[in-house]
Amino acid sequence: MSGWVTVAGLGPGDEALVTPEVTAALSEATDIVGYIPYVARIAPRPGLTLHASDNRVELDRARHALEMAAEGRRVVIVSSGDPGVFAMASALFEGLEAAPEFAETEIRILPGITAMLAAAARAGAPLGHDFCAINLSDNLKPFDLVERRLRHAAQGDFAMAFYNPRSKSRPHQFARVLEVLREECEPGRLILFARAVTTPEEEINVVTLAEATPEMADMRTVVLVGNSTTRRVGRWVYTPRGVAP
Amino acid sequence: MSGWVTVAGLGPGDEALVTPEVTAALSEATDIVGYIPYVARIAPRPGLTLHASDNRVELDRARHALEMAAEGRRVVIVSSGDPGVFAMASALFEGLEAAPEFAETEIRILPGITAMLAAAARAGAPLGHDFCAINLSDNLKPFDLVERRLRHAAQGDFAMAFYNPRSKSRPHQFARVLEVLREECEPGRLILFARAVTTPEEEINVVTLAEATPEMADMRTVVLVGNSTTRRVGRWVYTPRGVAP
Repeated sequence: MSGWVTVAGLGPGDEALVTPEVTAALSEATDIVGYIPYVARIAPRPGLTLHASDNRVELDRARHALEMAAEGRRVVIVSSGDPGVFAMASALFEGLEAAPEFAETEIRILPGITAMLAAAARAGAPLGHDFCAINLSDNLKPFDLVERRLRHAAQGDFAMAFYNPRSKSRPHQFARVLEVLREECEPGRLILFARAVTTPEEEINVVTLAEATPEMADMRTVVLVGNSTTRRVGRWVYTPRGVAP
Repeated sequence: MSGWVTVAGLGPGDEALVTPEVTAALSEATDIVGYIPYVARIAPRPGLTLHASDNRVELDRARHALEMAAEGRRVVIVSSGDPGVFAMASALFEGLEAAPEFAETEIRILPGITAMLAAAARAGAPLGHDFCAINLSDNLKPFDLVERRLRHAAQGDFAMAFYNPRSKSRPHQFARVLEVLREECEPGRLILFARAVTTPEEEINVVTLAEATPEMADMRTVVLVGNSTTRRVGRWVYTPRGVAP
């Protein structure tokens, strides 16, 4: 039997958000590869080997998956959310580009519910108009580029979603993000901090830009910023579908 | 029994991409409301009334759903893709804002697989780094704003996803979008046209900006534009996770 690699999105946490397509792929797998907390979501069963690895070893993980597929294994690389949004799909193709001997591998990417859309749904419809998604981590890009993109997003009046807003190793950067937003946007701009969305630890916190503090975010938080028309209706936050001409 | 309104995302077309959460909500519903082709995806059953309506009546549909919930009905408004991305969730909150008598309605928004992420998965990982989602329709906003956002997205070197790129009533506008991209981006920039993604009519077409023509898109197409680093590896298109500092 020939091997394959599938990169599957597990969604933000709630098992009711895992697509049947992903569930089927997991049931056919011989090997699961991924970051420790994501692999921990997969139920063990006979014939299935779990390969959990630490963060920041994405290329090693991709190479390992390609090697196992070449040996005839059926490998699912698990990502939380959607694998194409700041997750393992790009890393797999980087690995494939670096290892042409695996060019013929059978690969599938299976989409999932990404955190920003799960967070938006919990809060209402804050991304209901044009929006940007920005990874605030500077592991793989200079922070200057983050800042440039923030300013373009704000000046274009996009709503925004921020992934990986804050880590222990760079606590000052999210403070800088808030400073840039304060230079570009009005103080009443709505900001939503959604932590561990759809899990039992879920916390949703909606504040204005004037009230926002860096401590409101951690690495389990996705941050949504409304555009200039985003507003509250009752307990909900939404962005209207259009703007007056 | 008290009524409710749930806005549910059916995903891009393949039933294997409908989340179990959405399937459960549909099974509890007494009434399904939505645009004709989306309601057509719901299997009829005793006790379920299907209310299909034409495009551009989103606010009427929202009001109808709120009225039925007030009468004790369990109403699911169906959207394709994700209801929070250029779909019915914002319209429901616009309707709620306009009708304070329904303020106490029990509302839930259930996320779905949005077209850009399904299209990205089919092609590889073209949205694997920071990206923007832009609705090119000018039904509800001036085209000047579309153009301004395009330029900010390009100048910020975001990858981009365009919803509703082209319709019979405004065939010239997507041509203008391509002109703006040609002013802002290099001719080799990769563009992906994904039509009817995950359905039997799916077509995926990857070209360079120099090769792109307006006729490559219609209203069933989502268009993805890479950033300056987006490249091919074999039959795949992907955007690396980072850029050199």
